[in-house]
Amino acid sequence: MNILWVFAHPERRSLNGSLMTEGLRELERMGHESRVSDLYAMKWNPVVDAGDFDAPEAAESGRLLVGAEQERAHRESTLSEDIRAEQEKIRWADAIVFNFPMWWFGPPAILKGWFDRVLVQSFAFGLTDEHGQTRRYGDGGLAGKRALVVTSVGARESSFGPRGVHGSVDEVLFPLLHGTLWYTGVSVLPPFVVYGADRATEAGGADQADALRARLRELPTAETIPYRHENGGDYDDALVLRPHLAPERTGLGVHTREAP
Amino acid sequence: MNILWVFAHPERRSLNGSLMTEGLRELERMGHESRVSDLYAMKWNPVVDAGDFDAPEAAESGRLLVGAEQERAHRESTLSEDIRAEQEKIRWADAIVFNFPMWWFGPPAILKGWFDRVLVQSFAFGLTDEHGQTRRYGDGGLAGKRALVVTSVGARESSFGPRGVHGSVDEVLFPLLHGTLWYTGVSVLPPFVVYGADRATEAGGADQADALRARLRELPTAETIPYRHENGGDYDDALVLRPHLAPERTGLGVHTREAP
Repeated sequence: MNILWVFAHPERRSLNGSLMTEGLRELERMGHESRVSDLYAMKWNPVVDAGDFDAPEAAESGRLLVGAEQERAHRESTLSEDIRAEQEKIRWADAIVFNFPMWWFGPPAILKGWFDRVLVQSFAFGLTDEHGQTRRYGDGGLAGKRALVVTSVGARESSFGPRGVHGSVDEVLFPLLHGTLWYTGVSVLPPFVVYGADRATEAGGADQADALRARLRELPTAETIPYRHENGGDYDDALVLRPHLAPERTGLGVHTREAP
Repeated sequence: MNILWVFAHPERRSLNGSLMTEGLRELERMGHESRVSDLYAMKWNPVVDAGDFDAPEAAESGRLLVGAEQERAHRESTLSEDIRAEQEKIRWADAIVFNFPMWWFGPPAILKGWFDRVLVQSFAFGLTDEHGQTRRYGDGGLAGKRALVVTSVGARESSFGPRGVHGSVDEVLFPLLHGTLWYTGVSVLPPFVVYGADRATEAGGADQADALRARLRELPTAETIPYRHENGGDYDDALVLRPHLAPERTGLGVHTREAP
């Protein structure tokens, strides 16, 4: 398998950094090919602006329409080089690992801007199938790939549980897991989360590395989160879940299929 | 009232930009004072790194511990000047408006990094009350302030409803509304969301500006989202919601108090 490891932490000698080191070693041992996007080391620019597109007219005279310019530049292969290099890595990859500390209940800005700039329309989404239907949620430009989020939080596990004060970790990460990855067709593994990271000890770090290695060994085969497909018949034409599914329920959990 | 308007769009002549223009005009008409952080115009740097702190030793020899360095630099007033300027605006403000297009179901990276860099420990959180309890969720460094999110999405409203394919808009925005704003003590108004923004017309824009003006007139008085207080007795010592509240339920919705 070809695996892209996207790393977003300013310090390689951090818990997240050591997870990457151990993880890449395990992938090599398994015979996988891996490539790394170490966003801080690359001085990745996370800010979408007119410099992303070769669009001098748009920038100077007309209004800058971000989505339309991203798509046009993608089709004309004039997106800036740093963006095209990341897209090339994504095309190459069968699976992507996103490794970051959770800051304000989401990825650090440098990683958020990787999604903002790289996953443009007509590359990652906005494609249609042979029936003219939009390929989205379970299908899209990144269909067939897998992803694993590897993250750390300072809080205890109980506070991120189904009734914990922070919200359950998979619902807090829903904009990334469902709204970004599944949206573009990626099958998403349950996230690997290190809790209590502020109180991490060396012994704890070794346990965490062991647990991560076990998860990586299953990367090609593990069951992914059974989110519903947009075009699988579960949603009506207004993109609302049909009433007989998860009847009477609301909340982000309704978008995951129940065990049969 | 003093109102800080934080704007995160690369194009002032966008729907979001015109909402800001109309909104600021309305605030002035109401006799409020306002200040603007136009993050793109300011060329705001959204990336947390050692340059935020006066920490050459940490950067060169030891490991960079982001949270600890942020707190130390805040206490020593050595956070970088751009961060301190934003903190000063926050201190001055009674209410903050966050105005941005939703990209990948969250704020653009330039705004995500405003939270990452500005809301540091001992400024926005990590404070204790007279009983030694951590002031968090409904209390904290920003207690007493209000916030309104003004955002736009391309999708139709139905697809962001309680059973819409994208998830309900307040649950998708939970990391911001609850995990960032309420976490630091800010009372949060229900978000103002423009749907179908990609298909916006001028007539529709005028309607949206009217609707926003109405929301801004209520900014000082409108009821805020009744999220639960961490220290209000609803959570046990493991920070899990007590069983008699929202009994048998899970999901992000349990963290909002029910109507009496």
